Amino acid sequence: MKINSNPVRGTVDILPNEARTREKVKEIILQTYTSYGFSQIKTPILEDINLLSGGDSGDNTKLMFKVLKRGEKLDLENAKTENDLSDIALRYDLTVPLARFYCNNQNDLPVPFKSIQIDDVFRAERPQKGRLRQFTQCDIDILGDNSVNADIEVVYVSSVAMQNLGFKNFKYKISDRRVLNEVIVFCGFDENECKNICITLDKLDKIELDGVKDELIQKGYSEKNVQNLLSSISEIQKNGLKVLKNFGVEPAVIESLNKIIRTLNDLSCGKFSAEFDVSIVRGQGYYTGMVAEIYCDGFAGACGGGGRYNNMIENFSGKSVSAVGFSIGFERICMILNENQINLKERIALLYCEEDCIENIFKEVEKMQKDFEVIAVCKQKNLSSQLDKLKNNGFSGFRFLDSDLIKRF
Amino acid sequence: MKINSNPVRGTVDILPNEARTREKVKEIILQTYTSYGFSQIKTPILEDINLLSGGDSGDNTKLMFKVLKRGEKLDLENAKTENDLSDIALRYDLTVPLARFYCNNQNDLPVPFKSIQIDDVFRAERPQKGRLRQFTQCDIDILGDNSVNADIEVVYVSSVAMQNLGFKNFKYKISDRRVLNEVIVFCGFDENECKNICITLDKLDKIELDGVKDELIQKGYSEKNVQNLLSSISEIQKNGLKVLKNFGVEPAVIESLNKIIRTLNDLSCGKFSAEFDVSIVRGQGYYTGMVAEIYCDGFAGACGGGGRYNNMIENFSGKSVSAVGFSIGFERICMILNENQINLKERIALLYCEEDCIENIFKEVEKMQKDFEVIAVCKQKNLSSQLDKLKNNGFSGFRFLDSDLIKRF
Repeated sequence: MKINSNPVRGTVDILPNEARTREKVKEIILQTYTSYGFSQIKTPILEDINLLSGGDSGDNTKLMFKVLKRGEKLDLENAKTENDLSDIALRYDLTVPLARFYCNNQNDLPVPFKSIQIDDVFRAERPQKGRLRQFTQCDIDILGDNSVNADIEVVYVSSVAMQNLGFKNFKYKISDRRVLNEVIVFCGFDENECKNICITLDKLDKIELDGVKDELIQKGYSEKNVQNLLSSISEIQKNGLKVLKNFGVEPAVIESLNKIIRTLNDLSCGKFSAEFDVSIVRGQGYYTGMVAEIYCDGFAGACGGGGRYNNMIENFSGKSVSAVGFSIGFERICMILNENQINLKERIALLYCEEDCIENIFKEVEKMQKDFEVIAVCKQKNLSSQLDKLKNNGFSGFRFLDSDLIKRF
Repeated sequence: MKINSNPVRGTVDILPNEARTREKVKEIILQTYTSYGFSQIKTPILEDINLLSGGDSGDNTKLMFKVLKRGEKLDLENAKTENDLSDIALRYDLTVPLARFYCNNQNDLPVPFKSIQIDDVFRAERPQKGRLRQFTQCDIDILGDNSVNADIEVVYVSSVAMQNLGFKNFKYKISDRRVLNEVIVFCGFDENECKNICITLDKLDKIELDGVKDELIQKGYSEKNVQNLLSSISEIQKNGLKVLKNFGVEPAVIESLNKIIRTLNDLSCGKFSAEFDVSIVRGQGYYTGMVAEIYCDGFAGACGGGGRYNNMIENFSGKSVSAVGFSIGFERICMILNENQINLKERIALLYCEEDCIENIFKEVEKMQKDFEVIAVCKQKNLSSQLDKLKNNGFSGFRFLDSDLIKRF
């Protein structure tokens, strides 16, 4: 049997060089967050479909990979809908599983609970460049702390992780869900329309003001209200936090945004910056307070984001638990760092001949391990091809067993 | 909506203490193997069902979680069998995906290729204690090296990993698939019966000689042949490698086993041992040469195992590629180490009051990070419950922001 050896559509094999970068990025992020007392947790990749469908996760619920029921539970003959065939699915994010985890284990966890999750999620997106059906998310969350300190902390510790990864000159754009909601109502829209309008406003950086205007009018909103909203947004973008009170935004919201941004700039010591940006929406419907995104010099689009989502856990458990989280865009960051390599231990190949004694080979390998990662390999007939492939797989040089000289490629 | 917050049947949530141990075990194993030049790779969790069914992986193929087709591909009305509903599934091991990976990327990989995979696999086992439906496997493999050196290397480097994890007095039991096959034929059985007989012999440590005898006779084999086989095995167990030639085993096989065992004992410097054990079968049908298992003092059952499987990649690609691998039993090892904790950085809680300034809090946290992982948390009304939960989640002490004194729990 000869079989198609491609990975499943929309997924990829990760080769040694890329796997090494990814592992190092993971290690740096994990080490940073644990140094601030965050605790890693793991939840299963499979979750109940009712749970995954129950949040406010927008289109993601349409992109679930559903798992076929098994054994007696699978009644093919009488199955009429997908729900008859499937009751569990692959998770599409780490936030809904975190909410379930917290409900399930709350009695054993400290208050507040600071969690790290670095794990894979699955979405049946239409395959296209840069969109994978399996990808890694990297979330921190603080549950059970409704103070502005927690908002500041998730943003600040993610900035330390970014610095530890070697990023300089990055910027946080910060807003609060309540700002846009109040501005929208102030401009004459019905309160219930906020979500729908925000979906369009979220595209501001892609389709700009004119595009947003067209889409909102197409959605059936009055031109007067739309015009009103866009000029309000323009004025807020121009003049910042201090004009928010003119658009009906509550003083407490303005003060909290002020404190978050001021404190972050204090803490940054000039290594990054934080600024108010009313256009930051964040896709998910579940955000209730601060929303933030991170932008790196030289790269379009956000490299991470997050915010406060105080109602999600209550939706699941009936018990109110405040929550705020931040995700570093793991795939994005790894793509950037693959191109601007990070610091890894040097790898050297030790080439031996068939007749060499394996005990001696390991003795040499272990001597060199202080400085290098060392692969011992038998010289192949086509040495130059062998060396080429070692070079392309992260090895920077080689030596022969009978010589002390390390030759760099 | 109030929802069932249990993880899906047969899976578990991993809480902070356990997650920490697991991450540390992973780190030690990965660091050990990379220091010997092994390269981590990653394959998708989803694979084509034809691929997963095509190996010689025994019952595992019956335990696949199959994923429902989507969109136009899902024709519920005309679906007659599971295959009409599903064409991809969750992987049940890392070996079949490795074979696919190698076929897919062979031109980019060095020869020999030494890989590491530490990743999750899925089996729809009947839930029972210690059997999870999602669990982590930890495989190393050397592809493209048919020498006894590669057999020795996978076993030896796994012994270094075990030592780095703190294990002492462990033992490798080693055999070769060809030994039992030849003994079986020597005792009068048909060559085609080897696999079926080995399935029973694999239970030797559980049901002992009498149990094996009963099962083989129940399977319909002649009592004379069965008696012959069992007394042969007893004699080999008693007298070791030197009598194998009396049972039709080829000298080359005996010599290779001899070299593997002798070299491993040389390399061990007394820190572990390796011995021949004819009863080592290993479940999977795909093994073709050396098979090995690792046993730790004080724990029944193997803590890992592996062997040579030279035909699997050819089955997939039509191209002959030799292969040998070894898996440390990650879940087993983590269970043992959870009870006999490994060395982790100390975690301390820094307790502050609501009115404290967040800049000062982070300044203190960052001072303490040299020695500790530090969580900053606002003092709760019920301080003693807060401290209890911190203690139960891996924190070993606390201090107040306005004091320098660290109090250990």
